[in-house]
Amino acid sequence: MAEPRTLPESDRSRLRRKRERGSHDRDVIDAVLDEGLVCHMGFHVDGTTFVVPCAYARAGDVVYLHGAVANHMLGALSGGSAACLTVTLLDGIVLARSAKHHSVNFRSVMLFGTARPVTDADEKRAALAAVVEHIVPGRGADARPPNDEELRATKVLAFPIEEGSAKVRTGGPVEDPADLGLAVWAGEIPLRLVAGAPVADDGLSSAVAEPAYLRGGRFDPAPSGKVG
Amino acid sequence: MAEPRTLPESDRSRLRRKRERGSHDRDVIDAVLDEGLVCHMGFHVDGTTFVVPCAYARAGDVVYLHGAVANHMLGALSGGSAACLTVTLLDGIVLARSAKHHSVNFRSVMLFGTARPVTDADEKRAALAAVVEHIVPGRGADARPPNDEELRATKVLAFPIEEGSAKVRTGGPVEDPADLGLAVWAGEIPLRLVAGAPVADDGLSSAVAEPAYLRGGRFDPAPSGKVG
Repeated sequence: MAEPRTLPESDRSRLRRKRERGSHDRDVIDAVLDEGLVCHMGFHVDGTTFVVPCAYARAGDVVYLHGAVANHMLGALSGGSAACLTVTLLDGIVLARSAKHHSVNFRSVMLFGTARPVTDADEKRAALAAVVEHIVPGRGADARPPNDEELRATKVLAFPIEEGSAKVRTGGPVEDPADLGLAVWAGEIPLRLVAGAPVADDGLSSAVAEPAYLRGGRFDPAPSGKVG
Repeated sequence: MAEPRTLPESDRSRLRRKRERGSHDRDVIDAVLDEGLVCHMGFHVDGTTFVVPCAYARAGDVVYLHGAVANHMLGALSGGSAACLTVTLLDGIVLARSAKHHSVNFRSVMLFGTARPVTDADEKRAALAAVVEHIVPGRGADARPPNDEELRATKVLAFPIEEGSAKVRTGGPVEDPADLGLAVWAGEIPLRLVAGAPVADDGLSSAVAEPAYLRGGRFDPAPSGKVG
């Protein structure tokens, strides 16, 4: 069996409160990154902190981000701004008998680092294909790949998976013993991001069949496995 | 009819690219804040930017955040750190015939400001009730309210809704005309956060009935209305 891969603990990735919910295990971290659709990128430029949602894909030890060459966030990040990349998956609402112990079940990852601009054309193409394939597995082989002009107009960054941690909460409420007898309902409402039936573009030729990869997999109506 | 309420445009809340997707309209902003369950708070302390997911509730012109007195984020924010609060709702995946024009349908809000510590006991109680009520409408009147000791152990912050904007993307792919004839499926996969059946806590007395507010409303299986 392979050694468990873990990220080293740094001062800022140190688990603070509720340490038992935290992990530096790469398998836990990667599973969250691979399930999420959108990350929240935090960066600080000219005295202002920004938090911007964006699509991404993990490939090995990096997370790829992309956008237009003029994109504000990518400009700040490629200029060397230290940043924080957070992915959060919501799994449930936890209702306790007391207001205080209400909580949320979630899996999240927080990574710290400085993004590297991807300039090699082959890595750029692979990164963009990875983002499409991450969002809709199977799609990468189907959509028209970027041409040279599109490639030049697109900025790609690689954010390192080197420093950070995951945090996972599962299960029901944790209550004060004195409250257990209260006549107040307690438990969990599970939450899940689900896909509806695909809606074809108005202009789509009826000769183009709906591909199988639009259903099942990420879009399976069955609950996805949980980490933790 | 009331005047439309809008946030003033500041340099950092100015809409940059894809301006047509942006808005400073408070109705659009409030609808996103009221539908979201978790916000991502960005703040910058000792040279590091952090992005932390957390529960919240909007009440009038502020967003309330809360946590333990020792909470790292609340400590930084109540110390006067300028911060960014982002809420993102995912509505769909947009598949274009070309890889480049793949996109995500979403509604997001980004607010900039400095949080105010809430020290008045009445406002603190109201803020904590608002957070519970926001997450599960109807719950506020049911759960045991915080006692004095719990109130002292909880820090509450009010983040102003004064500077920021919303961004909304809806609809199908926007393609290069030359690609419209490609035999590649194009359209949207709608996404929605849905609730499963409530799971009662193991220790819950069978005399406690499942309250009606656990189903319907936020948890209605029908698609929620869309902004924009």
